[in-house]
Amino acid sequence: MPTRLIECLAASEPLSEVFSDASVLQAMLDFEAALARAEAACGVIPQQAATAITRLATHDGFPLDELTQQALRAGTPAIPLVRLLTARVRAEAPEAAGFVHWGATSQDVADTALVLLLRQCRPILAHDHERLLAALSKLSTEHAGTVMLGRTLLQPAPPVTFGLKCASWHAAARRSWKRVESGFSEASCVQLGGAAGTLASLGDRGIDVGEALAAELGLRYPDAPWHTHRDRLAALLAALSIYTASLAKMALDIALLMQFEAAEAAEPGGSGRGGSSTMPHKRNPTACMLAIAAAKRTPGLLSNFLNGMLQEHERAVGGWQAEWPSVEGIVKATGLALECMVEVAEGLTVDPARMRANLEATSGAIFAERAMMTLAASIGREQAHQAVEEALRQTGSPPGPRDPEGYLGSAEAFRKRLLQGED
Amino acid sequence: MPTRLIECLAASEPLSEVFSDASVLQAMLDFEAALARAEAACGVIPQQAATAITRLATHDGFPLDELTQQALRAGTPAIPLVRLLTARVRAEAPEAAGFVHWGATSQDVADTALVLLLRQCRPILAHDHERLLAALSKLSTEHAGTVMLGRTLLQPAPPVTFGLKCASWHAAARRSWKRVESGFSEASCVQLGGAAGTLASLGDRGIDVGEALAAELGLRYPDAPWHTHRDRLAALLAALSIYTASLAKMALDIALLMQFEAAEAAEPGGSGRGGSSTMPHKRNPTACMLAIAAAKRTPGLLSNFLNGMLQEHERAVGGWQAEWPSVEGIVKATGLALECMVEVAEGLTVDPARMRANLEATSGAIFAERAMMTLAASIGREQAHQAVEEALRQTGSPPGPRDPEGYLGSAEAFRKRLLQGED
Amino acid sequence: MPTRLIECLAASEPLSEVFSDASVLQAMLDFEAALARAEAACGVIPQQAATAITRLATHDGFPLDELTQQALRAGTPAIPLVRLLTARVRAEAPEAAGFVHWGATSQDVADTALVLLLRQCRPILAHDHERLLAALSKLSTEHAGTVMLGRTLLQPAPPVTFGLKCASWHAAARRSWKRVESGFSEASCVQLGGAAGTLASLGDRGIDVGEALAAELGLRYPDAPWHTHRDRLAALLAALSIYTASLAKMALDIALLMQFEAAEAAEPGGSGRGGSSTMPHKRNPTACMLAIAAAKRTPGLLSNFLNGMLQEHERAVGGWQAEWPSVEGIVKATGLALECMVEVAEGLTVDPARMRANLEATSGAIFAERAMMTLAASIGREQAHQAVEEALRQTGSPPGPRDPEGYLGSAEAFRKRLLQGED
Amino acid sequence: MPTRLIECLAASEPLSEVFSDASVLQAMLDFEAALARAEAACGVIPQQAATAITRLATHDGFPLDELTQQALRAGTPAIPLVRLLTARVRAEAPEAAGFVHWGATSQDVADTALVLLLRQCRPILAHDHERLLAALSKLSTEHAGTVMLGRTLLQPAPPVTFGLKCASWHAAARRSWKRVESGFSEASCVQLGGAAGTLASLGDRGIDVGEALAAELGLRYPDAPWHTHRDRLAALLAALSIYTASLAKMALDIALLMQFEAAEAAEPGGSGRGGSSTMPHKRNPTACMLAIAAAKRTPGLLSNFLNGMLQEHERAVGGWQAEWPSVEGIVKATGLALECMVEVAEGLTVDPARMRANLEATSGAIFAERAMMTLAASIGREQAHQAVEEALRQTGSPPGPRDPEGYLGSAEAFRKRLLQGED
Repeated sequence: MPTRLIECLAASEPLSEVFSDASVLQAMLDFEAALARAEAACGVIPQQAATAITRLATHDGFPLDELTQQALRAGTPAIPLVRLLTARVRAEAPEAAGFVHWGATSQDVADTALVLLLRQCRPILAHDHERLLAALSKLSTEHAGTVMLGRTLLQPAPPVTFGLKCASWHAAARRSWKRVESGFSEASCVQLGGAAGTLASLGDRGIDVGEALAAELGLRYPDAPWHTHRDRLAALLAALSIYTASLAKMALDIALLMQFEAAEAAEPGGSGRGGSSTMPHKRNPTACMLAIAAAKRTPGLLSNFLNGMLQEHERAVGGWQAEWPSVEGIVKATGLALECMVEVAEGLTVDPARMRANLEATSGAIFAERAMMTLAASIGREQAHQAVEEALRQTGSPPGPRDPEGYLGSAEAFRKRLLQGED
Repeated sequence: MPTRLIECLAASEPLSEVFSDASVLQAMLDFEAALARAEAACGVIPQQAATAITRLATHDGFPLDELTQQALRAGTPAIPLVRLLTARVRAEAPEAAGFVHWGATSQDVADTALVLLLRQCRPILAHDHERLLAALSKLSTEHAGTVMLGRTLLQPAPPVTFGLKCASWHAAARRSWKRVESGFSEASCVQLGGAAGTLASLGDRGIDVGEALAAELGLRYPDAPWHTHRDRLAALLAALSIYTASLAKMALDIALLMQFEAAEAAEPGGSGRGGSSTMPHKRNPTACMLAIAAAKRTPGLLSNFLNGMLQEHERAVGGWQAEWPSVEGIVKATGLALECMVEVAEGLTVDPARMRANLEATSGAIFAERAMMTLAASIGREQAHQAVEEALRQTGSPPGPRDPEGYLGSAEAFRKRLLQGED
Repeated sequence: MPTRLIECLAASEPLSEVFSDASVLQAMLDFEAALARAEAACGVIPQQAATAITRLATHDGFPLDELTQQALRAGTPAIPLVRLLTARVRAEAPEAAGFVHWGATSQDVADTALVLLLRQCRPILAHDHERLLAALSKLSTEHAGTVMLGRTLLQPAPPVTFGLKCASWHAAARRSWKRVESGFSEASCVQLGGAAGTLASLGDRGIDVGEALAAELGLRYPDAPWHTHRDRLAALLAALSIYTASLAKMALDIALLMQFEAAEAAEPGGSGRGGSSTMPHKRNPTACMLAIAAAKRTPGLLSNFLNGMLQEHERAVGGWQAEWPSVEGIVKATGLALECMVEVAEGLTVDPARMRANLEATSGAIFAERAMMTLAASIGREQAHQAVEEALRQTGSPPGPRDPEGYLGSAEAFRKRLLQGED
Repeated sequence: MPTRLIECLAASEPLSEVFSDASVLQAMLDFEAALARAEAACGVIPQQAATAITRLATHDGFPLDELTQQALRAGTPAIPLVRLLTARVRAEAPEAAGFVHWGATSQDVADTALVLLLRQCRPILAHDHERLLAALSKLSTEHAGTVMLGRTLLQPAPPVTFGLKCASWHAAARRSWKRVESGFSEASCVQLGGAAGTLASLGDRGIDVGEALAAELGLRYPDAPWHTHRDRLAALLAALSIYTASLAKMALDIALLMQFEAAEAAEPGGSGRGGSSTMPHKRNPTACMLAIAAAKRTPGLLSNFLNGMLQEHERAVGGWQAEWPSVEGIVKATGLALECMVEVAEGLTVDPARMRANLEATSGAIFAERAMMTLAASIGREQAHQAVEEALRQTGSPPGPRDPEGYLGSAEAFRKRLLQGED
């Protein structure tokens, strides 16, 4: 199933697949099947019922349209899901029909399905993350000695190296991913609480069933149901949003370097990339643009999720039901930004000569700090500041040497520390 | 095409239809066809070309999947759209193929298509808005004399009437819609600027073509292209978000009145509405819940749109490309909240007897203000406050009369003013 | 009272003054005094009481610290305000003390005070808005013929004029202000509802007192109290946020033009402006930066306000009490962005020669569209696109003329339309 | 220095103190003094200079107003700070004046000061967090057997215990704090990069000075400067926002339980708490309200911060400068919510009799699930659902036993697991 046209700039294919109707439906059915097996294993329902439910809980031929239409009226997709699955089971194994969804509540299905979908996103993101780290590490090493203008407030500053810049992006990605990993681990827990979160209808077998269910699905079994405590999900979504923002910082830097007037780096053109319908000459920062766009969609979605966290008693009236599109939007944004920046990092064109030329074009003004600090050693920082300012006004350039390599301070040491990581 | 499962609680059917692939595609094709006709009318391209383009610019059989897949790489759906439409035209009317998209840029198609889609939403929303006003006006009139507890900080306060409450919801809806209408009017303008917003490739015929295009599409022709000035769209989206919040305030009030412990009003049950998969006895505030959920999804989407408004020069690198899902999300939320609250208002069960019983159950404590003000006339406001507080502590109720009808102040006058409107 | 250090980059002096303790306190006292006079005029309280209350309702010597400390525990500043004002009146005019705050509720004071503060902001903003329009209009006229690169996705595009750019900023400011004005008008209404919004304790005199109060304060008298209907305030805040975003779009454009590599325009240096503590050579886009920062603080504040609009029954438990800092933050951000962009627009340095040089440095690549469209007239749009792309690859520049003045299309016509306005 | 009136409901005293002018100023001065000492220790500047700078870097008598006024024009408080501190040093120790701020840039001061302020917040929050855990643990244990209505979508559901509810709040607070702690640890690193983040003016002593500076201030020394990589701060702010939301969920539950119609629990009255200016009888959920209000202010502030993370190259033009008020707002909100909920948890009145009465008032309808599950074991889940629904329609209550203690499932097991924690 392709991405919808209205979000064609907002989702990569693999994550669109994860949140496709078939995939969401199957995740819900997987819960029902695993629940039946767990309950059979615990002796709560007959083994044959579990076998029949498992066999029939597949999205093939499931009346999806009926499900979606009834979901809105029911206020949850789980109610029509259970009804339609029960009907299907009854048709083939009547004695099993009564055991569908045994002891569970709507939110148990919906939440566990969401967790299962998120788990599918993890390796997709992880794969691109690893590629990104590798590409940035390579770029950083190659350009350890490539000097370029530092730029502060979009104005020339003392030199940096492109290798240092890449290492900073690398470290931000690595830190961000570590938080995402921790968020996934925390959030990957099954939901099973029944009507009021006590699993009352399972008597004293509630926790046994819950643990068996978690094992069936390969999820963690939490301390207790979390119907109205959404902090674990929130932590994952925050980590994803922060990662997306870090990727967009890198994208913005590169889009700025790609400006015709700077022309120090360029994302790869590739097939179908970055053209213009009217301007045959253009090489647009399309991938960077998509990553920036992704980061402009996440903060508000995260804020919506946080606002939804004020959930009433044992099940919310609105806060919970608002979540799915926000979760989907954030994960998709992260996935798209990652996919784009992998492409950029792996295919980036860097122009060291132009970097040096732009640096030299500043006529040494960027060495004003250096001149000032040299002077300051004898006449003090403030007077030196004024003296150099005066010299700049009169001659356009400060006194003193102008070799960027000689004024890099700890750039290389920082670069190595960034690549190596803090932990 | 049904709503996607992942957003099954976030969209009503008619608005899902508007933003379906076929509909979005057709809006883009409508732009291309109308542009060709406008240019033919201005003598810019041959009339036959316009006729051929118009005939072939239909979504039937258009290779939608190809379009969507290429859009992401191109960074815009417009580039593959133009390519695919040109190929289609070439196959049937080769001489017309060269005139597809003549003089326009990608953003011209995308923005005008968005405006056309929004125009389709307007009557859908307007229809539900009118029904809502009618239902609330009726409720307000019926319950002009139905006394009930006022509630402040969720604690009992002096009495109000249910008619006044309905009139407040009515007035908020009416004010909100007025802003929405004004937003639609402002935003309903065509986009046509060409590569850099000057229509350079149309020579001195740019404005003529633009006006003809606007006339073809029934849109307004603005002062100039607005590629990176998104304030008109922002104003519409803000108005929609504010309306959604007003609807959710009404929904929250009703969900609170529906609590078992209050039981003063209830939204209609209806078919498939508000059940529970585990609890046969439940009558849930499902429609109110969906309206509340809608209002929890809009504020962040609006904030995303506003953040995207910092758009660079003549075309943004990210800010613009982030917009579509936010626009879609906000309009759908408003539409769903409206649809839900129409159902609620038209079918609301009100229990005046329970309202009075709850009021009386406070043992007159809510008349403390009245007692205080009566006392205050002789001994001053502050002493009176203390005296009444003391009486309450000792006897649990204040001195003085306790007829709610006698302590309604300007409730009825306010109710009439609210229904009548300010302008 | 100076701005606090922690928000020293977030507030201009005049608006800091409006939201200073003395000013906020006085606004609340003004309500109490005007209420007393209105009630005296309606015969509800003695005239002498009104006179005494009016005389003593001044912030001079008012125990502000005590007020602020008690506000948090009371959950509203109004309760300690009334208590402290009553004590003050009792000390000087004991017989009047009992009539302080007669018939009003805490939210009446707080909301009306907020509206009074907002009214003080209006002329401050209006003054800067008028200066901005004048400066931009002048710049636009002066530079009607100043050609420069169009830039899309931060890449070169066909030429525009700087005059057109200024006119676009001008029109966005004018449209934005129109919405702000309308927001101020809507929101400038008095709040007077008493305990439950019915003015019960004023018997049948509620509306008379309300109208007299509105007249005393120069505010509009609305249809009814609006304790939990905040849409009018929301509309004003949305309009302010949209204006701020429009200002930041202009600021971003100029910061980009100020880049050393572009150097086409520069905001004025002025005293204390834009230096660097380490780099004597720097001329930073400081004013633009502050405007951009302002626009990065508003969207979330607006979203917070909208989330707070789901207010329970007759007085909210949290939503209302969250409002003040958001309102303050948004208005201050708009005021600061306006003040900064006035300074920028009035003192902007423009370098037409550099603009032309940057344009020419593209070797005519930006005329690719023109070449394509010329070719397209004979061989069709698509083939022409490919032919020009090929020529660019081989020679670095497209065939055909390269005079920017000859390829401006409707730039000048659009410029005039933008300056003139739509209405 | 008291809290400002405009934010009197948005900040507790201790955190207002942390962000007071004197405190912010001192944090910046502490950086300058520690930098001088670190540089002296590394032999970069004379020891006497460090001694003099340290002695004079105190906020006493520092011209704060001048500083704040100049900060806005300079675009940073650091430039006037350095100028004013240098003047002060020159007056007393002329030979030291030249060494103030040696090698550092404005953002080094500002960022490190922010980190120092955040460090001051940590123990304040930690203290309240510990009290909250203790109070909730106590409540949970006391009410392990206190049965009450479960409530889903604000409607009656099968019984829970109040002890389970408290344990859920407890676990959410504990998980949330763990993330906050981790955020503080990550974010507590010094900033020292000089003009372009390379510490060029310190030659090869940059990292030595940085490590010495970190040691002086008791902060962590990170891998490299982080001027435009704000993910660590973002992670802390996200964790604080999530904690605030968890506290507000608890506050909302209690405010709902405090409704007159439910009356199952009440926050403590205490001095000055929760009164009404008009209604002597009221006992408002004031502390809960303030916590809810806090959670309505944080999500947008976090979203603003995330939007600001797209920072250009080596120093941002706007994104960074927007941060301080957002950081302050979030920390203060968390601090206030914590302070309020500590007060609530330590003084909560619980009414087990009313809890049971409300439960019994449902006439057993909440045992419908139980009846259904019992029936289902013989006739299947779906038929049972219909049978019980039918019985409810006819008799108003389901068949079967109605002892809440007998239908608590795993409530007690979950309660113990929640109190004990997962790790």
